Amino acid sequence: MVVKVYGPAYASPKRVILCLVEKEIEFETVPVDLIKGEQRSPEYLKLQPFGELPVIQDGDFILYAIMRYYAEKYRSQGTELLGKTIEERGLVEQWLEVEAHNYNPAIYELTIQLLFSSKFGRPVDEKLVKESDEKLGKTLDVYEERLSKSKYLAGDFFSLADLSHIPFTHYLVGPMGRQHMIRDRKHVSAWWDDISNRPSWKKVLELCKTPFG
Amino acid sequence: MVVKVYGPAYASPKRVILCLVEKEIEFETVPVDLIKGEQRSPEYLKLQPFGELPVIQDGDFILYAIMRYYAEKYRSQGTELLGKTIEERGLVEQWLEVEAHNYNPAIYELTIQLLFSSKFGRPVDEKLVKESDEKLGKTLDVYEERLSKSKYLAGDFFSLADLSHIPFTHYLVGPMGRQHMIRDRKHVSAWWDDISNRPSWKKVLELCKTPFG
Repeated sequence: MVVKVYGPAYASPKRVILCLVEKEIEFETVPVDLIKGEQRSPEYLKLQPFGELPVIQDGDFILYAIMRYYAEKYRSQGTELLGKTIEERGLVEQWLEVEAHNYNPAIYELTIQLLFSSKFGRPVDEKLVKESDEKLGKTLDVYEERLSKSKYLAGDFFSLADLSHIPFTHYLVGPMGRQHMIRDRKHVSAWWDDISNRPSWKKVLELCKTPFG
Repeated sequence: MVVKVYGPAYASPKRVILCLVEKEIEFETVPVDLIKGEQRSPEYLKLQPFGELPVIQDGDFILYAIMRYYAEKYRSQGTELLGKTIEERGLVEQWLEVEAHNYNPAIYELTIQLLFSSKFGRPVDEKLVKESDEKLGKTLDVYEERLSKSKYLAGDFFSLADLSHIPFTHYLVGPMGRQHMIRDRKHVSAWWDDISNRPSWKKVLELCKTPFG
């Protein structure tokens, strides 16, 4: 049974697809147009009751928190994404939580304001942009310190924690015009070059168009 | 080596302590006073570079995303909190993510506004309170539907996903005066009676005072 991933145009599902590519798991994609509000259709809400992306369907199994499941289920296939020991996994979980709690809220708000507002014909909230830039900068300062001590966030191995940063940071350095936030920080910059040049991410970019070119 | 947990007065560290009690793991607590700003002291920032709670120290191992680590490390000791199969764990992860992404942002904002603002001498932001009440209500509607089909969030077994709701929901039904949000929903209400009556939670309440009586 091939895994169906909904909404491949957007950053959160791209994160899931990137994980499936690293794990060498077959998938197909089902378009969901957020601009048209298709995530609030009755059919979609049956899959994901909060009307959010991502969601996958794997036979009868429907899941909307997906990456850890496949990383665990296919532990010995493709790239090991959870670390080898319980301590390593603890650090992977920690930096996944940092991404979710400190990095993503700021970069997600920038995505909404700088990339989505115009698509919805809404004005950009400059105050929110300024606050989000500051918050993201402070978080990247902590990353710079961390990445001066280890090659990747959870240690000297690539993991889900690094992977989860890729799709939104790709917007940051591209259509958001904020490359300097990465390039002004030596270790963050080297880390970004490393993780964004993985063949898996290049494959995802070929397979799934983004709405921002 | 006994696990040291920082800031036991507050809800996020209480969640960790509750997990340690369920797993029958020895711990001691180190007070951190958020009102005095002790989380921004140089010593604290060495442990947790974002100046946030919780953080634990287990010998030389410092971690600030903690529950999954202990639930995994002591899998066969105390209560099994991650589910028995990979599918069950996938659902535990999913509802942990729902807590972090849909439930906690709203209830955390209510905690800040209704319980902390007065301690800092700040006015309550009534607009934020209204928005958070609405968001939390919508999330609880999804929970009501889910809990009409299974006894706990991830299935018919108590897990980290349920546990992670306890300390903040304890504020909601107590000092925040919002018991009706739980009681107006039949299945949520039965679920709350079940999880809040676990001996582990009663033990945490005895051991760790809260700043809100």
